[in-house]
Amino acid sequence: MNTFGHLLRVTTFGESHGPAIGCVIDGCPPGVAIAPEDFAHDLARRATGRSRHTSARREEDAVEILSGVYEGVTTGTPIALLVRNTDQRSKDYRDIARQFRPGHADYAYWHKYGVRDPRGGGRSSARETTMRVAAAVVAKKWLAERHGVTVRGHMAQIGDVLPRAHDWNAVEDNPFFWPCAEQVPELEAYVDALRKSGDSVGAKVVAVADGVPPGWGEPVYGKLDGELAAAMMSINAVKGVEIGDGFASVAQKGTVHRDVMTPAGFLSNHAGGVLGGISSGQPVVVSVAFKPTSSLRLPVEGVDVDGNVVDVITTGRHDPCVGIRATPICEAMLALVLMDQALRHRAQCGDVDEVTPRIPPSADA
Amino acid sequence: MNTFGHLLRVTTFGESHGPAIGCVIDGCPPGVAIAPEDFAHDLARRATGRSRHTSARREEDAVEILSGVYEGVTTGTPIALLVRNTDQRSKDYRDIARQFRPGHADYAYWHKYGVRDPRGGGRSSARETTMRVAAAVVAKKWLAERHGVTVRGHMAQIGDVLPRAHDWNAVEDNPFFWPCAEQVPELEAYVDALRKSGDSVGAKVVAVADGVPPGWGEPVYGKLDGELAAAMMSINAVKGVEIGDGFASVAQKGTVHRDVMTPAGFLSNHAGGVLGGISSGQPVVVSVAFKPTSSLRLPVEGVDVDGNVVDVITTGRHDPCVGIRATPICEAMLALVLMDQALRHRAQCGDVDEVTPRIPPSADA
Amino acid sequence: MNTFGHLLRVTTFGESHGPAIGCVIDGCPPGVAIAPEDFAHDLARRATGRSRHTSARREEDAVEILSGVYEGVTTGTPIALLVRNTDQRSKDYRDIARQFRPGHADYAYWHKYGVRDPRGGGRSSARETTMRVAAAVVAKKWLAERHGVTVRGHMAQIGDVLPRAHDWNAVEDNPFFWPCAEQVPELEAYVDALRKSGDSVGAKVVAVADGVPPGWGEPVYGKLDGELAAAMMSINAVKGVEIGDGFASVAQKGTVHRDVMTPAGFLSNHAGGVLGGISSGQPVVVSVAFKPTSSLRLPVEGVDVDGNVVDVITTGRHDPCVGIRATPICEAMLALVLMDQALRHRAQCGDVDEVTPRIPPSADA
Amino acid sequence: MNTFGHLLRVTTFGESHGPAIGCVIDGCPPGVAIAPEDFAHDLARRATGRSRHTSARREEDAVEILSGVYEGVTTGTPIALLVRNTDQRSKDYRDIARQFRPGHADYAYWHKYGVRDPRGGGRSSARETTMRVAAAVVAKKWLAERHGVTVRGHMAQIGDVLPRAHDWNAVEDNPFFWPCAEQVPELEAYVDALRKSGDSVGAKVVAVADGVPPGWGEPVYGKLDGELAAAMMSINAVKGVEIGDGFASVAQKGTVHRDVMTPAGFLSNHAGGVLGGISSGQPVVVSVAFKPTSSLRLPVEGVDVDGNVVDVITTGRHDPCVGIRATPICEAMLALVLMDQALRHRAQCGDVDEVTPRIPPSADA
Repeated sequence: MNTFGHLLRVTTFGESHGPAIGCVIDGCPPGVAIAPEDFAHDLARRATGRSRHTSARREEDAVEILSGVYEGVTTGTPIALLVRNTDQRSKDYRDIARQFRPGHADYAYWHKYGVRDPRGGGRSSARETTMRVAAAVVAKKWLAERHGVTVRGHMAQIGDVLPRAHDWNAVEDNPFFWPCAEQVPELEAYVDALRKSGDSVGAKVVAVADGVPPGWGEPVYGKLDGELAAAMMSINAVKGVEIGDGFASVAQKGTVHRDVMTPAGFLSNHAGGVLGGISSGQPVVVSVAFKPTSSLRLPVEGVDVDGNVVDVITTGRHDPCVGIRATPICEAMLALVLMDQALRHRAQCGDVDEVTPRIPPSADA
Repeated sequence: MNTFGHLLRVTTFGESHGPAIGCVIDGCPPGVAIAPEDFAHDLARRATGRSRHTSARREEDAVEILSGVYEGVTTGTPIALLVRNTDQRSKDYRDIARQFRPGHADYAYWHKYGVRDPRGGGRSSARETTMRVAAAVVAKKWLAERHGVTVRGHMAQIGDVLPRAHDWNAVEDNPFFWPCAEQVPELEAYVDALRKSGDSVGAKVVAVADGVPPGWGEPVYGKLDGELAAAMMSINAVKGVEIGDGFASVAQKGTVHRDVMTPAGFLSNHAGGVLGGISSGQPVVVSVAFKPTSSLRLPVEGVDVDGNVVDVITTGRHDPCVGIRATPICEAMLALVLMDQALRHRAQCGDVDEVTPRIPPSADA
Repeated sequence: MNTFGHLLRVTTFGESHGPAIGCVIDGCPPGVAIAPEDFAHDLARRATGRSRHTSARREEDAVEILSGVYEGVTTGTPIALLVRNTDQRSKDYRDIARQFRPGHADYAYWHKYGVRDPRGGGRSSARETTMRVAAAVVAKKWLAERHGVTVRGHMAQIGDVLPRAHDWNAVEDNPFFWPCAEQVPELEAYVDALRKSGDSVGAKVVAVADGVPPGWGEPVYGKLDGELAAAMMSINAVKGVEIGDGFASVAQKGTVHRDVMTPAGFLSNHAGGVLGGISSGQPVVVSVAFKPTSSLRLPVEGVDVDGNVVDVITTGRHDPCVGIRATPICEAMLALVLMDQALRHRAQCGDVDEVTPRIPPSADA
Repeated sequence: MNTFGHLLRVTTFGESHGPAIGCVIDGCPPGVAIAPEDFAHDLARRATGRSRHTSARREEDAVEILSGVYEGVTTGTPIALLVRNTDQRSKDYRDIARQFRPGHADYAYWHKYGVRDPRGGGRSSARETTMRVAAAVVAKKWLAERHGVTVRGHMAQIGDVLPRAHDWNAVEDNPFFWPCAEQVPELEAYVDALRKSGDSVGAKVVAVADGVPPGWGEPVYGKLDGELAAAMMSINAVKGVEIGDGFASVAQKGTVHRDVMTPAGFLSNHAGGVLGGISSGQPVVVSVAFKPTSSLRLPVEGVDVDGNVVDVITTGRHDPCVGIRATPICEAMLALVLMDQALRHRAQCGDVDEVTPRIPPSADA
């Protein structure tokens, strides 16, 4: 089950330390301008090794377009993208081939398949998310050109640190995608200390899509929020997903939660842009919880494939907080879900939304 | 998109105030004993009108088996279930046919389809979840008989009230599925006051599956947790889903979160029974956030289809807390996802898990 | 696997002698006018018992619309259709519950599922095709209204009898859908003799769609011709499918087969309206081979579930030629495939075909 | 829609003259031994340039395994295969970029997508079938090892030439996959004359699977024969598909067609191994009609993208009969369908067929 989406279908393949990773994007409309250099920006945002706060593995991922693009535009046929794996260090992982690391997928993969590629986590490595980000470059481009939709994200919590302010302009100027510039030195110290301690910490990322028209989403089992939940939860290390107010809704009263509509616009967005599984025209807001990395330098008791107790020490290159690089990945999944839903909506209901009046996203917009 | 699942496929149909609701269950293994009376228990647990704390609509849902069962057992062909709608009061809803109720799916459905059935929310009504519960009766039975898996749930929060104790034995003895018996009078007073005030409140439900063997789940886009997230988020009024510790993982350290494995069992279950998208053999634990009902007797400003400001008053029969009846629905979606994944695992990897040693679910088990 | 189609998805259920048969049509665009009486015409064309040349079972199928239609138009939500089974005679089939009839699905169903409903063939009965015809009523209507596409069919061979002329006007005036009026008395005598003999014979049906625009079909695994082949082969008793010249192409030269294009139109239609898996703008022509019914009054050696030799005598009501009623079924599958492909084309490539010039279907059109 | 199969899913990509073609095989069971050299045999059987009777393009296709195989066995994760395109001659095709060749996919692709890759037919080239053959190497291996199923094929007609004898041993000893050795010189002269004339001719190929157990196939829309029909019809240039007696069934009597079962075995196989859409335990027999190649050196009138009349001359390297190389492709599609169905059967009904007695494939076996 390595294919994602219904009409825009992305199939990814590849292991952390195999010869290559790649994807096939099927169902993309023809005529979208795509060049190999379009992928560089988002892949760099996701890459390890761009600051001292992520894994030391240097991912300098050059994307080769193998098919589906002719004279610079998509032809409607499958777009295959290939990235060769370069900075592999298989020896780092050799010792753990017969051990199960607590909190990792090792044990579950071994029980499922009876065989596993232990090199860098094999298929369960976050390396796979590279191709989600690559595929979403096409989706982001199409969404922007066709529908004026923009997708962006930021980190909203790391450990117990919360942003003191929210400034979209700050987000891309620090390695954490943090929306408050003045906190960045503090965060750097926090993560430095964490890395030295050998421990790790969780994080929360928020992804937002602006400009989504009302009407995207397919009740009742292809709801926009349902597919966003699956998309985000399929990212490595994710343990929770919220739409709009999410779990805060539990303690809210209905008179507080319901977003009042006026001809001038919605007065709030507790719903996070989704009503009844369909976009409402407001910004789509998704929050994603990342657990702390389980690959730690600190030894821990474990078991091996024969059931013996072993000391597990993980010596590879790892992130002290996988959430640090997760913002572009959450954006990618949001963009892929939206484009898929846009195509499905066009299929059933046609391209032009002639229903009027449309309420503005917010009253002060 | 009214079909759920890959190998066990459930298609539901029907509107709140149409002639009937129903479902088709496709892909069920042959030989499962099913009788019409098997559906009564869970449908009653989900039904409105069984206490004063839920909508006054009386759902006395008799399930007719239309196909797929011969001489009391499933034949492997599609199982169609039909429930006639009886206690309809279309007049309650007539006035709002041209209005958009804040927080409802009205506006989004209207923008998507250009036409909508306004009677009781039409397709967007929680009435649809009846058929999820009915379909899951088959899944629960198969999971129990074939794999010894049991699925159950309880409410874990209503408004800002949290359980003071956790006793599975208390759950089925009160209309809230609340795990602490001594709090029940307090909850009754709370919900009575809420209903009188005309307002509503949110809730959190936890569903748990015990006995799930390791190996269920299909990385990377058919992960067990990803599909659970989609399944839960597709339930009416859900705004958040967590696996295991969920959003609490954000503030945890890796040394805390990683569940240590010993030959005697796992020492904790922060992961909620899922590692790398595959079941680990521990209990699968899912938490679900329900927003407060938007159907309130308290008037609110709204707009109509012509863009005019209108006073919206909802006079139908509604729940002060939709989460009160949600426990069997969450259980249903958990059971359906698990059975579908069990069949998919058998397809790819075979039926018998011969990989050893399997670590017990918990060290003190 | 009782669901057909990708965006227009039809799920059928029901056995020959169960309480009811039915279908759920999902993905239909909103706004299509549908009334219960729309189904009568095509269901009558398919029904047994309308002439002495088909099974004596009287199918007077009244279609109940259970959902998806409000105030006479589709709402975009699933359309459920229900037909109660009335003229059942279970006793006819009791004796064969433990026998395998040669040429029937009995043996294969029993080996697959280990259990089967023997009443009238159960799920393997041609009774199921009723719901294909019903579902296609919606598809035919949408195709005609939205795209000006018309779908029709005729019988093209019965046994070794071939039409001596081709007149579309004759087709609906005889119970065989035969395109040559003067041959009808001859055919009646032929089928009367066949019925008296207790034997049966095969037939060939041709279905044609006029007005299909160029561009429908999804290479390379969702090709229009590939999906037509699957659709037709899924009909009971079908053993072969051809597009355009079909098997006659084997002996043709390339200079003969290739359909020359001129600005005035195509000069021939050997391709049957499909090139590279995509509609070419010419009529889509599909030929379908039906085997002779295996349910014969003539006794035959068989085996039972214990492996013993038994005499198999089939005493139920059966068609001497299942192909006689097959024309509306082939039309139905053609219409369902086309509508599904039309929606998929709109999803990927948009609704309006602005590519010019389009070559007329034929030079003399 | 470039993915084939439900549980064994093959996604292909690539154009005739792009940088590479490839596929991703998803859902393969773990533990299947696969090495790069396993692909050589079948790819050579399909390749152009191995005799003077096929296109002069030299396909020396080296398969690179990019993922899904670790230490020589499949791991259950997606298997990506890559073949670089080498012997490209884009200049051959430059002149026809704005022309529509009669009988080709050019016109249909252009109308669908509004843009097309004209180099060697782009995505519509038979080059794509390379990856079907490669993917099926895995399927053939699994079917043989797990179920003892063997898949093979032969040419059964070229133009109006029919085999005078049927000898499986002769098939692999001539470039036509012809089952009668003494006719080979005659065929060579026939095809030489054809090539010199600049014309082309059609062909019929038969593919057979022995050892298929009863029970594979999913009524009613995932029938074994329905999926075989789609699979074969999706191959370039195919215009017809038959199961067993196919169109010959039309003129048969029921007493002739029905295959009598005795405890010693079936007495005939008119059904071609499929009853009710499910395998019967007899050999599965599929016949496939290939049209004559439309790429001819003989000039023909055509139109260009502006609607003008043009002389179309095709100067590339082409096959005088595409059917000559089609036998391994038909085998491939048969193997892929069977493996997919085998996995689906295991999912729903379990792995071991304990139903008895099973009738032998044929009475004299």
